[in-house]
Parts: sequence; C-alpha cells; structure tokens
Amino acid sequence: MQFASRLDNVSTSAIRELFKLLGKPGIISFAGGFPDASLFDVEGLRQASEQALSENPGAALQYGATEGFEPLRSQIAAFMDHKGVQVEPTGLIVTTGSQQALDLIGKTLISPGDKVIVEGPTFLATIQCFRLYGADLVSAPVDADGVRVDELERLIVEHQPKLVYLIPTFGNPSGATLSAERRRRVLELAVQYGTLVVEDDPYGDLYFGEPPPPSIMALSAQVPGSREHLVYCGSLSKVLSPGLRIGWMIGPDELLAKATMCKQFSDAHTSTFAQATAANYLASGRMPQTLATVRAVYAKRRDVMDAALRRELGEAITFTRPEGGLFFWAALTGAHGALGDADVLARQAIEQGVAFVPGAPFFAENADHSTLRLSFATADEARIEDGIRRLGVALRAGAN
Amino acid sequence: MQFASRLDNVSTSAIRELFKLLGKPGIISFAGGFPDASLFDVEGLRQASEQALSENPGAALQYGATEGFEPLRSQIAAFMDHKGVQVEPTGLIVTTGSQQALDLIGKTLISPGDKVIVEGPTFLATIQCFRLYGADLVSAPVDADGVRVDELERLIVEHQPKLVYLIPTFGNPSGATLSAERRRRVLELAVQYGTLVVEDDPYGDLYFGEPPPPSIMALSAQVPGSREHLVYCGSLSKVLSPGLRIGWMIGPDELLAKATMCKQFSDAHTSTFAQATAANYLASGRMPQTLATVRAVYAKRRDVMDAALRRELGEAITFTRPEGGLFFWAALTGAHGALGDADVLARQAIEQGVAFVPGAPFFAENADHSTLRLSFATADEARIEDGIRRLGVALRAGAN
Repeated sequence: MQFASRLDNVSTSAIRELFKLLGKPGIISFAGGFPDASLFDVEGLRQASEQALSENPGAALQYGATEGFEPLRSQIAAFMDHKGVQVEPTGLIVTTGSQQALDLIGKTLISPGDKVIVEGPTFLATIQCFRLYGADLVSAPVDADGVRVDELERLIVEHQPKLVYLIPTFGNPSGATLSAERRRRVLELAVQYGTLVVEDDPYGDLYFGEPPPPSIMALSAQVPGSREHLVYCGSLSKVLSPGLRIGWMIGPDELLAKATMCKQFSDAHTSTFAQATAANYLASGRMPQTLATVRAVYAKRRDVMDAALRRELGEAITFTRPEGGLFFWAALTGAHGALGDADVLARQAIEQGVAFVPGAPFFAENADHSTLRLSFATADEARIEDGIRRLGVALRAGAN
Repeated sequence: MQFASRLDNVSTSAIRELFKLLGKPGIISFAGGFPDASLFDVEGLRQASEQALSENPGAALQYGATEGFEPLRSQIAAFMDHKGVQVEPTGLIVTTGSQQALDLIGKTLISPGDKVIVEGPTFLATIQCFRLYGADLVSAPVDADGVRVDELERLIVEHQPKLVYLIPTFGNPSGATLSAERRRRVLELAVQYGTLVVEDDPYGDLYFGEPPPPSIMALSAQVPGSREHLVYCGSLSKVLSPGLRIGWMIGPDELLAKATMCKQFSDAHTSTFAQATAANYLASGRMPQTLATVRAVYAKRRDVMDAALRRELGEAITFTRPEGGLFFWAALTGAHGALGDADVLARQAIEQGVAFVPGAPFFAENADHSTLRLSFATADEARIEDGIRRLGVALRAGAN
C-alpha cells in the first residue's frame, strides 16, 4: 500500500516503543502525561451529564454547530475572563481536545516547507502534528525562564516563520514558565515582525504557589496591535477530564473561520454530549474547588519528588523545581563518572521497575540526550519515593 | 493572514449560504442530513452514560488508546458480525464520527495530485475533505442501481486512482443502492486493478422493506483476495445519536496503523466518555428496538413525501423512491415549460417557506443543475405534506 507523501515526515516514536514496556507488572511509571484519574470530580460530571440529558436531550445528542455548542462557548468565554482574557463566545471555537486545535492550526496555516519555530524542547505531538502538514521546524532554546527571547528574535529574522508555537506556562516537557518580561517581549516581536504566536496553555491553572504571570493573550492588552497576532489554545483535559476531549482556540476571526471550515471536514463538530456536559459543569460553579484539590495534591507530589531526586540522585542530575504543571525536566550531569545518557538510563530503569521518558524526542532539532521528563502527577507519594529510589539504583547500575 | 495552499482547493459551499436562510421563522426544512432528535433513545443513553460513570469512571474520563476504547471496539465488532462482516476488535479503530474516518483516509493516503474516484453525485463533505489533502476527484456516474460499474472500470483504467469512494447503500445524496451483482463486480475490479475501495455505510441499517444487499465488505468473502483492498466506514450518527460522534473504520492492518498514528495528532482519541456510553448502549441490547422504531417512522415519512411529490409536482420532477436512508434525490424535468434549474427553485422555495438542497454541489465534476435533495427524516408527516405543497407553489411561481 502506498501512503501519502506527508507521512514521510514523521517516524514511529521512540516513546511509543518505551510505552509498550509499561505493561510490565509492578512498574512505577513517571512516563505519562496523564492527570490522576482518582482526582476527577466524578459526581460533578455525573450531575452535569444527567442535566444535559434531562434538560435538552435533543440538543445534547444531535448534530451541532462546527464552531461549538453555544452554552459551552459562553462558559469558556467566562472562564477565560477570570483568567484575564476578554473574548466573546463567538471569538472562540470548541475543539476535540487542544490536540485538535493544533491540528487545525497546521491544516489551516502550514504549507509544505513553511518554517515554524517551536521551543527546544516542546510537546512531542506538536512536532509530529505540524510535520504531517509539511512544517520545517526550527527550535528556539529554553532556559528556566522559558524561551530565550533574544534567540527567538534572531530565529524570526532568519527564518520568517509562519508561526511561533510556545507553551509558556509550566511547559511540557520543560516545566519552565516564561517570565512576564519575556512575555511582553514576545508580544512586541509579534507586532514588530508580524509573526503569529500560538500560545498553548493546558497547564496554566495547575500552579502550586503564587499564580504564574498572566497568559500572553491576557498581557496583549498592554502591547497595542499584538492581539491580532495571537492564537490561544485551552483545554479541560489536565484540570477536569481528558476523556471529554474538550479544548478551545481563540484567535483572529479570519483564522477561526478557516479553522471552522477545516474542522467541518475533520470531525464535523466535537461531541455535543461532551460539550453539554462540560458546559453544565462549568456553570455549576464546582471548578474552583476542583482546581484547588488538584493543585494541593500535585503540589505535595512535586515536593516529594523534588526531595527524593535530590536525595537519591544528588549531583548526578540537575533540574529546576517546577512551580506548577505535571513534570520535572532534568538533565544527567555525568558528574563523577555517573551515567550521562538518558536513553540508556531509561532502559536500566525499566529493569529496576521504574519508567520515565527520555528527553531527546522532545527536540525538533539538536536533541539533548542527557535530558529526561518525570511526571509527578499519577503516582502517589509512597510510589514516588519508591520509584525515585529505584531510579537511583538504575543510575548507579549504569555508572561508567 | 496567509493561509495554507491546501485551502485553495476548497471554496465556501453554496449550501452553507443556503443554510443561513434556514433561520427564517416558520420554514419547513428538507435541507439537513440530520436524523429526527425526537427518536433518540434518551433513556437508553442516560442509563448507558450513568453506567459508564458508576462502573469505571476513571476509564471513562481519562485519556484512552488512540485506536479506541476496548469495550466499544468489541461491541462494534459484534455489531458488524450481525451485518455479515467478520472482524476482530483490533481490526477496527474508533473515529470521531465517520467524518473523521474520511479525514484519516485522506491524511493517510492522498498526496497532492492523486486521483480519487467518487460517485457523481456524492457526499459533499467527502469532496471537500479529500480536496483539502490535494485530491484530484473524478466522478463516476450513478443510476438507480448505484454506481455504473462499466464506467467505473473505464475510469479506474484511465486514472489509476489512489482509491474509489462509494456510498453503496441508500447513498447520500442519490438515495440509490448498489445491486448485489454490481457489488461483486466492484470487488472483482478491486482485485483485478489492485484498487483500494472505501465503502461509506452510515445508512445501511435504515431500510424500510427488505434489507439491502450485504455490504461490499460482507460480500468480500465471495471474491478471493478482495478484502485486503477494502475499507469500511461505519457510524452511530444516523441510527443512534450524531452528538456522540462515534464512527469506526475497518481496513487492512497496515492502513489502520498509519491512520492511528495520524489520529494521535488529530485529536489523540475519541471522547472516552462518549465511547463508554456507546459501548454500554450496544451491550444493553436496546439497539434492535431503536432501529425498528426509526425504520418505521422514516418509512412512513418516505411514503408521505413520495405521494406528495407525485401529487404536487407531477411531471415536473422525476425520482426513484428510496428504499431506505434519509433522502429523495430528484431531477427537475422542465416538462411543459416547468422550471428546470434547482438553484433557482431553491430560492423560490425559500420565499414559500420551504427549503431543500440543490444537487449541483454534490458533483465533484460535471454538476447537474436540475437535481435536488430532499430529506424526509426530520419533518413530521403533516409538515412534509405542507412543505411539498409549498414546493409545488414555488415551482409553479418559477415556471417559464
């Protein structure tokens, strides 16, 4: 069978091979990017879905507008307003998870050969998604304060990209948060070079101490002319339930119209049943308590993993403690002859019954094989302790 | 804003403009392709969703496998077995409505410039979906027995298409059903020329009298070597609920693997909540009664529209009475100076408070402007009588 030429741009991921090993009994996994299912507000979602089927079942079960179910668009607009972004319900479209927002951005904007700047490292599924549309990805370096805006400007000038894609808040996998100052600089660059900036923000509500800086889109009010160069992707997956597949995209009307047309031929619309359930849930007023719960649980797990990593791996590893999100992003130092290659450590770790994701696949170019990503979201505190202890054993077993 | 070059291949549909007029108060619409929401088995779906959230809420609300939720894949395999298609649960993938199956077929298989043969007329969203991936569509003529297989063979030889796309049972918009003899011929052509045949079958269960011939995939057992050239797209949208967005695709393993990879970057997976609900519904045993109900109601509406068209439009229109599905496909004859252009009639009809879809946009090439599509599914019998009466008035108002 001869497949489309666009498939030549992507390869079966190394991570996929690793995930096959996760079925091994007793394994402690820090590999996934999942929220903890035991924290889902099942009762609240049960009431919300029940309400959808009792109040207006015809609407919840019928075809719906491609742009999204009106009550949900209104609730999302109100949700965004609380986060400092003014948007009309008609100024956003509902997507089948924020993954579909990325797909629609690619389908709508990227012609084969177009340059797209992403962070190095960035979300693996964004790399593959954009490459399927023929994007030529360029990687902008990230430090503890997020993407380096001096490098970003240099790359914009050099490559004149179709768009810049950032996960500025508790980035996946970097865990880094772009400083407020750099956010304003990104907005200035967008205006100065007429560059579209896509802000992917699935983790912004998962902060553990002080709230992070406002989103780039929220800050756009401070930089005249910048809003028209911005796209924002939001999601209920990390804070409420991934299984609903509810995401959204805010952007210029012209782009939303084209994305809506593309979505019509991608999946017609997002499940109206899931949309009505999400709308009722957001209207119920339970979200603040749900967010408070997940923040508290994840914060404690972050603390436990932080301490365990320092205790068990010491100088062999370096990382910045994340202030939110789901991930530690770390690098093996190779200090005192310790193992420096995370791909090797990943295999050793599986032997010891613990899994994580090596960092190399998260780089669109110039992969750093010393890096790794550890999720603290799904294992409880005791298992985090046990898992990091095993990781220390694996590291020492693989020492030079 | 500069959009991707692939968007140059599609234009805003004339139908979309028409649909904007449907908000006019009191209008009777035969334009949509919707099932009747009043026939949805709300109680059955309520129980099914409740069960999903009580038995295993973690699974129903969490991320799931891109290929689909295992219990649903098993239920769909059993559902297909009743329809004469043997398939393992792992031999199908769940899609976000069958629209996504079409999208994944396009993404996985169609390179820009590839020839694809479709029926003339065919499903509008297939035309646009495939064109977004750069397909060069070729139209095979249809008569009352479905696609003409002699012409199909000629076009396969001439164009060596990447695939042939057919809606062989109660086609949209043609209403036509491919005869059993022609189905076997299609299978022979697939083997002889090594051509992939995509069978889109959203309407096959909506028959009013005798069941239609078995699906092309079911018949493949009779033609050695043909199954490996077949893809089947199924859907719960027309028989249970479009709002769930549950479709599926059966095909060669190699194709399903590539389609799964593409789906991972399109929407990660179909809503697990909707999938778990659909799985429980199918397991509940209520589907046969649901199908019996919708068949009976739509059959009566078909009869009413059939009689009304003959009475009110007489020789001005010609059509074959559909034996299932949702649509009458008709052509204006222009007899005795009557109006012969369905685009003109559509505008006149709106004036009289009735809407239908002109047929021209359903042709990928060589549009026939005398044709029109009328859905009998959503208006009740009294409104069908009234609407067709109005259509007669509109026709006479527009006579030459």
